Amino acid sequence: MKCNTNPVKGMRDFLPSEVRLREYLTGVIARTYAQHGFQRIETPAVEHIELLQNSEGGENLALIFKILKRGEKLDLTKASQNEDELVDSGLRYDLTLPLARFYANQRARLPEPFKAWQIGTVYRAERPQKGRFRAFTQCDIDILGEASEIAELELIHATAEALKAIGLRGFTVEVSDRRVLAALVAALGLDTALTPLVAVCIDKADKIGWEKVIEELVKQGIDQIAAAGLVGVMQSLSLGNLAEHGVSSSVVEALSGVVETAATFAGGDYNVRFAPTLVRGMGYYTGMVFEITTAELGLSVAGGGRYDGLVGKLCGQSVPAVGFSIGFERIVLLLEQQGFTPPVSIPSVALLYNRGECTAHSVITAAEALRQQGYAVRTLPERAKLGKQLSQLEAEGFAGYYSLAKMELVMFERA
Amino acid sequence: MKCNTNPVKGMRDFLPSEVRLREYLTGVIARTYAQHGFQRIETPAVEHIELLQNSEGGENLALIFKILKRGEKLDLTKASQNEDELVDSGLRYDLTLPLARFYANQRARLPEPFKAWQIGTVYRAERPQKGRFRAFTQCDIDILGEASEIAELELIHATAEALKAIGLRGFTVEVSDRRVLAALVAALGLDTALTPLVAVCIDKADKIGWEKVIEELVKQGIDQIAAAGLVGVMQSLSLGNLAEHGVSSSVVEALSGVVETAATFAGGDYNVRFAPTLVRGMGYYTGMVFEITTAELGLSVAGGGRYDGLVGKLCGQSVPAVGFSIGFERIVLLLEQQGFTPPVSIPSVALLYNRGECTAHSVITAAEALRQQGYAVRTLPERAKLGKQLSQLEAEGFAGYYSLAKMELVMFERA
Repeated sequence: MKCNTNPVKGMRDFLPSEVRLREYLTGVIARTYAQHGFQRIETPAVEHIELLQNSEGGENLALIFKILKRGEKLDLTKASQNEDELVDSGLRYDLTLPLARFYANQRARLPEPFKAWQIGTVYRAERPQKGRFRAFTQCDIDILGEASEIAELELIHATAEALKAIGLRGFTVEVSDRRVLAALVAALGLDTALTPLVAVCIDKADKIGWEKVIEELVKQGIDQIAAAGLVGVMQSLSLGNLAEHGVSSSVVEALSGVVETAATFAGGDYNVRFAPTLVRGMGYYTGMVFEITTAELGLSVAGGGRYDGLVGKLCGQSVPAVGFSIGFERIVLLLEQQGFTPPVSIPSVALLYNRGECTAHSVITAAEALRQQGYAVRTLPERAKLGKQLSQLEAEGFAGYYSLAKMELVMFERA
Repeated sequence: MKCNTNPVKGMRDFLPSEVRLREYLTGVIARTYAQHGFQRIETPAVEHIELLQNSEGGENLALIFKILKRGEKLDLTKASQNEDELVDSGLRYDLTLPLARFYANQRARLPEPFKAWQIGTVYRAERPQKGRFRAFTQCDIDILGEASEIAELELIHATAEALKAIGLRGFTVEVSDRRVLAALVAALGLDTALTPLVAVCIDKADKIGWEKVIEELVKQGIDQIAAAGLVGVMQSLSLGNLAEHGVSSSVVEALSGVVETAATFAGGDYNVRFAPTLVRGMGYYTGMVFEITTAELGLSVAGGGRYDGLVGKLCGQSVPAVGFSIGFERIVLLLEQQGFTPPVSIPSVALLYNRGECTAHSVITAAEALRQQGYAVRTLPERAKLGKQLSQLEAEGFAGYYSLAKMELVMFERA
């Protein structure tokens, strides 16, 4: 079996040092979310294809990995007409849709409001490029069943605290509201049902620039002057002039309240501001939306918003919902760039033995004695070039080594 | 979007209490393996279809979830001939094959011997039944690059220690060797290349009984008398009479040595014995094989063995390898049956507030003050029926509640 030993295109193997950083990060985030009363749930990576394809996942719908039907259900003669005849499930592209399905299914057994946190791998068949992968970790908190802005504020507070626990400072929490965009769309004389489509176009401004956003809006059937006007107004918005542009006073109050209150919890550690051009790219947001950006990356490291309609579509009963997702992979990248090394929980010792000169019994007995002293112990055959082996062990992070021949524990001197 | 909100057939959603148990278990196993010097790696759940289909996974090859090719690569006109024209990847059915691919790919960057541990979800499209799932967690340790029995002994020791740390006692480590079976096959005048096939048949004895095993062997082309003889001899084997049945003295010595040495580390906590009929169902084992069974379940809770050929097939260079896998799902089941509750790391307090009577600012400020005192805090609106709400909170595991109206922390009295 001569075979390609690389991982599948766009996916990654993780070496022990990479896993260590990812686990450290997961642990810090998990602890913060548990302190804030969130409960972890898990759903399968595989979902019904109808659920995935009928969702409001925007551009992600074109990126679904589809799984072939099995056995009698697979009728290959139907294939030439439509690939969808061949598949009945697919890999999830985010954690929000599975959460909505989970909640619709398990609601009777869950507390209300339900504060969930999740971490898991999601899959998108994007064109692989630097920093973009086809399998990546998402890390979400969501509050379901709470209509008031306390939900938004708790998510912003918990997410910011998680980023602080990771060691980030000086980031900016940006807040806006889909209802602001809806008011602008209405002020242009357009149907507010167009708001999600307009949001998907505007969300691309960072990538393609405002000129091209206007072109995209025109493609959606909005006339050139209206599109340019909308973009101009958006950039000029502030909490003070929202009312002049037709945004209702309740929305202005809610938005101002969240920005002001969130700022009081920020202290000097991070900033909170109204970001008029923030809209987020998913179709399902209905209210406030937020992102966190860092100066280091110049990129968003967290994003979320209110999606009151999504759960209702699945369970037939309206359920208010808000979520905030940490960009796990971007934070891993940031920490790697900074040369961050996770703290060691137990010191490690390498137990070196001579092959042939000692029994497995003596090796394991000596290792066990060192474990009783509180060390993590890896047994290794001693190499001919001991000096080189010891340098490698020190570089790998061992605190010291034990020579079975000399029955001697030697700790490395730390720089 | 009216949609089935159940998870995909054979897969599971996990409620917070279920995740808590699974995370506790993962944590105990992770700590034990780290103490024994194993390093965690991760590979993607998606693998190349050629790798999966050309592997020696026995009956698992028929159970692969296959993923549709994308874009131009997908030629639907070819579908009517062969479904394999439509797919280029699939979900992994175990963690051993991905480890072998990982090692073949990354060998230059890994220590030698390499002691790996993994935990992850694997997928098999089995007929769903009680206790059998289409997505389940596996938890493996492997040693690559060590030909001597110290590898077997370290895996047995570390796995038994992990089970002890979970709280299991009185289990039995069963040890045998594929080379014993190969000797029996040779003694019958058959080609030893048949050994893996014979092993797959014999491995079914627990499920289908020995009569049917003989039928299966006959189906593989072995004559009735030889098959019955083989089964009879297997059941009569002991470490003392292996030599009489053509097993080489080096194999007898290795097997006796591992059983005796492993027993010295067992103390009174578990048993170690030679199990003549143990063969394991995967085609790739080449040497010793082992299983751990518990009296409680009457089932194997861990299994593994030596597979010296597998990595070599992928990297073109022979690499000795041994692995041991804990049956994570079976242990979860066992702990659930025993009503086990994982210990609480930080005590939780519910902060109860009256909607409308207080600001989000006051709620979050009070929650933060309780967090500073070391509590995990979940904020919840106080319900009209407070007594019922408090009973529910206590049942859910909260240590107490804080009434924002009364500014009072009340701890529940523990039974």
